Amino acid sequence: MRLFFTGLRIASDGTVRDVSAAPAPSPAAPTSSETSGSPGTPGSPIELNLTGDPADLTAALVDIPSVSGSEAMIADAVESALRRLPHLRVQRVGQSVLARTDLGRPTRILLAGHLDTVPIADNVPSRRDGDVLHGCGTTDMKSGDAMLLHLAATLPAPARDLTFVFYECEEVDYDRNGLTRIQAEHPEWLAADLAVLGEPTNGNVEAGCQGTVSATVTAHGRRAHSARSWLGDNAIHRARAVLDRLAAWDARIVDIDGCEYHEGLNAVGITGGVAGNVIPDECTVRVNFRFAPDRSAEQAVGVVRDLFADFEVSVLDVAAGALPGLHAPAAAEFVAAAGGRAQAKYGWTDVARFAALGIPAVNYGPGDPSLAHTREEHVRMSQIREMTEVLRGFLTG
Amino acid sequence: MRLFFTGLRIASDGTVRDVSAAPAPSPAAPTSSETSGSPGTPGSPIELNLTGDPADLTAALVDIPSVSGSEAMIADAVESALRRLPHLRVQRVGQSVLARTDLGRPTRILLAGHLDTVPIADNVPSRRDGDVLHGCGTTDMKSGDAMLLHLAATLPAPARDLTFVFYECEEVDYDRNGLTRIQAEHPEWLAADLAVLGEPTNGNVEAGCQGTVSATVTAHGRRAHSARSWLGDNAIHRARAVLDRLAAWDARIVDIDGCEYHEGLNAVGITGGVAGNVIPDECTVRVNFRFAPDRSAEQAVGVVRDLFADFEVSVLDVAAGALPGLHAPAAAEFVAAAGGRAQAKYGWTDVARFAALGIPAVNYGPGDPSLAHTREEHVRMSQIREMTEVLRGFLTG
Repeated sequence: MRLFFTGLRIASDGTVRDVSAAPAPSPAAPTSSETSGSPGTPGSPIELNLTGDPADLTAALVDIPSVSGSEAMIADAVESALRRLPHLRVQRVGQSVLARTDLGRPTRILLAGHLDTVPIADNVPSRRDGDVLHGCGTTDMKSGDAMLLHLAATLPAPARDLTFVFYECEEVDYDRNGLTRIQAEHPEWLAADLAVLGEPTNGNVEAGCQGTVSATVTAHGRRAHSARSWLGDNAIHRARAVLDRLAAWDARIVDIDGCEYHEGLNAVGITGGVAGNVIPDECTVRVNFRFAPDRSAEQAVGVVRDLFADFEVSVLDVAAGALPGLHAPAAAEFVAAAGGRAQAKYGWTDVARFAALGIPAVNYGPGDPSLAHTREEHVRMSQIREMTEVLRGFLTG
Repeated sequence: MRLFFTGLRIASDGTVRDVSAAPAPSPAAPTSSETSGSPGTPGSPIELNLTGDPADLTAALVDIPSVSGSEAMIADAVESALRRLPHLRVQRVGQSVLARTDLGRPTRILLAGHLDTVPIADNVPSRRDGDVLHGCGTTDMKSGDAMLLHLAATLPAPARDLTFVFYECEEVDYDRNGLTRIQAEHPEWLAADLAVLGEPTNGNVEAGCQGTVSATVTAHGRRAHSARSWLGDNAIHRARAVLDRLAAWDARIVDIDGCEYHEGLNAVGITGGVAGNVIPDECTVRVNFRFAPDRSAEQAVGVVRDLFADFEVSVLDVAAGALPGLHAPAAAEFVAAAGGRAQAKYGWTDVARFAALGIPAVNYGPGDPSLAHTREEHVRMSQIREMTEVLRGFLTG
């Protein structure tokens, strides 16, 4: 997931099914349907066993380093494994791999996971300790990828048509994100009735996401020597009004489709000062507004501009939120299959991209999101298996 | 002068005397009374004409570059010129030059000027434009040095005994300041009833100086992701209390010996923030307290600590102020000779060092102090001549 966050650990409420009951189709001969993009690394790709235990598959994926920008080896392995499945049509786009069924089903579900990780921090290869698998990407999000790859291999005849997207560079700039290229060059691959992203949710269904505005608010004054401070106009003292308004801001809590979005408007940085003996003429507060998805990005920017109308406001960055969209039939059915409850996602993920395309999207993946991007990243192997079976239930039901 | 400041331009009120009436003794043979310290640069020193026009002498001094740490050439020239004067005993200490009369007069006046300048900014050699002399050090303080050197040469029999101190490295660290070494190694040279520093005062007498305390005041909070800001405790928002107290602080205006000291307590810097998506756990305000010299340095630190008792306070730097000391007889006579009025010095100068030694000290030198350390530094040549004659009147009267 793109933005790391901490806190709010909530126990899983997903329905658990018996893992041993899962069908295990025999390996199929490779098909070479379509090819585009770069071929990846030379030599034979690493062989992945998609039909075995998705926890083992998670470990195998963690053991292929794939820091953003270096996904060729893992993409080759994923492509090669998917091409062996006769029920899928496969396409390579850069270091992203696309696969789809075309069974003429009435609904299509898009299942997506990014292949990249943040930089390795002495946590590759993976390491097992009882039920716990440690390592870079165990949470974010090779356990999610393993869940989706296992279902791709073991669901030759699902009740819904499936599109799988394993993509590159999610942890870095939006422009390098594999989905950005796919959206530009192969938009037909993203058409679906519901998108499920395997980002870590610790067994929950997380729907929609908050939007975010980053801006600077600058107070101006007049410089003077601090020995004659009364000749100046202290911009840092003037910035009190900015901080007062932030502290007094009445944060909304908004319920949309049963998901609760808690807004926040905060100073995340402040800087001012010229020298130790100078009354400063400028003080800049960096503010971050996390807004519920019932506001548009434009409306959210307006909130910040209106609140600080008497200061210089400069917007640095805006990302629209995503409405949960859980009233859509496929989304409602997924929530029911996963235990009947969804909650708001507080960080920003690619669900916002699908929401912008008019496709309901949810996050659903193994691992505690608060562990993402930490050296201590780990996942419960039993949770990987349990969530895989919950998702199987939805796709076959 | 050590601290550059801006503003408060006040017209000269010094008494003007006819420059052409000044005595012009004939050059004397060099005397080689005492020597210590390093010999400076090899070769013959540049010859300075001390007995001519002090404005011409200012130009000659400006044309010898002497950025702090590179004063050997100017110190050689000054030493050589002073050694030609039979009424003075001369001593070299590093790149500082000391000279004194020993006439058994009832009072002794110390006259001091630093030989160094801030870095040259395309403003050497000097340039004349009507009455104005432009160049690095014209204000701070080669015009003051020229005034003192001219008086050293042209007052063979003053009414008061005189000690001249031309010293190195005033514009840099206290430890490198020539007066620091003289105070440690030759304290007897600093004994006097009054010290007059030729720092720029634009014709006024400036007495005493404010003290200064630099400190940081840090507010602490608790980090959280900005998408879940209610789980954190925003240290930048907490710093409001620091700024509120600074803005509400009731600055005293204190009259001491007829000089008005205006205190100031200000934020001169602020910094806080971890990342654009993190509620910050720390925000540090840098404060500067300029205090009237009726408070000790310890008392001034106490004011800052008491005001922010509930925050983490760290004192970075303290410099005591200096009482004007104008009730001392020699000081009162000097103020009377210079027009009868003195005003507070707002920046910090070496007068504070003399005050700490129990010696009344004033600043009195040509040039607008607000031009010090600027590329545009300049001085009115007529003011150099006028102030030289005012000072002559005091020393002979």
